[in-house]
Amino acid sequence: MRKTLVTIAAAAAAIGAGSAQAQFAKPEDAIKYRQSTMYLMNTHLGRIGAVAKGAVPFDAAAVQNNAAIVEQIAKLPWQGFSPGTDTGRENRAKPEIWTNNAKFVEHSKRLELAAAGLSAAAKSGDLGQVKTAFGNTAQVCKACHDDFRKD
Amino acid sequence: MRKTLVTIAAAAAAIGAGSAQAQFAKPEDAIKYRQSTMYLMNTHLGRIGAVAKGAVPFDAAAVQNNAAIVEQIAKLPWQGFSPGTDTGRENRAKPEIWTNNAKFVEHSKRLELAAAGLSAAAKSGDLGQVKTAFGNTAQVCKACHDDFRKD
Repeated sequence: MRKTLVTIAAAAAAIGAGSAQAQFAKPEDAIKYRQSTMYLMNTHLGRIGAVAKGAVPFDAAAVQNNAAIVEQIAKLPWQGFSPGTDTGRENRAKPEIWTNNAKFVEHSKRLELAAAGLSAAAKSGDLGQVKTAFGNTAQVCKACHDDFRKD
Repeated sequence: MRKTLVTIAAAAAAIGAGSAQAQFAKPEDAIKYRQSTMYLMNTHLGRIGAVAKGAVPFDAAAVQNNAAIVEQIAKLPWQGFSPGTDTGRENRAKPEIWTNNAKFVEHSKRLELAAAGLSAAAKSGDLGQVKTAFGNTAQVCKACHDDFRKD
């Protein structure tokens, strides 16, 4: 019975992710896909972070460009977390992604919202807004990593 | 003298890519970045290719979504090919990327145009247009890989 519920939840998550199971031929492809999206997000968020921390001078156009990329890519990783993609390639996914999938999906939606907020802040051209929105986005990243990513 | 010219060309390419040298802390980061972008492009182009070849039924909205992602990501890889990123992580870049950089840049612009054309074709909702635009994009990929990527 318990197993049935988990299976249904997993199937629902897969549908929510756009039938991800059908989108990757092998689990390792899904893992490599999500890792690639995370690497790009980390790169472009990091560039905004360097500005937010004052390590790099504020260039409004560059921040806007980086934030637009983050906003787009924040929508992508989730399809790579379909059931059965816990192994197949070295990765740091915790089993809770699939056993507590509703919470994971909630985190993913929060990131998409935070990234959209960061992009809006970047368009304002106001460094203060960028700093606030970056801080919020970084917190959303961390909260999910704390719960769902191995150290 | 020859070396000076190459250095100037390389510097110009780096500027064209948005001062890529300053954007990655280490060559391996730039290589991982460009490989991540290529993996995402390959994934989403592959999904359109499956439709173009008739292996997957035509879903206009899905093709449009995949094409929009390809269009965005096609702009990104080039910053990861800054001078000095031939080594640092396993990769298939040929030295010609830097010794014949003008041609490489030309290919990169062609891909951006082809991807924009594919996205426009996808928006039309017409499978024939998608097939033509996909074929064109795949040819642009192949032409660049033939010249600038090791087997």
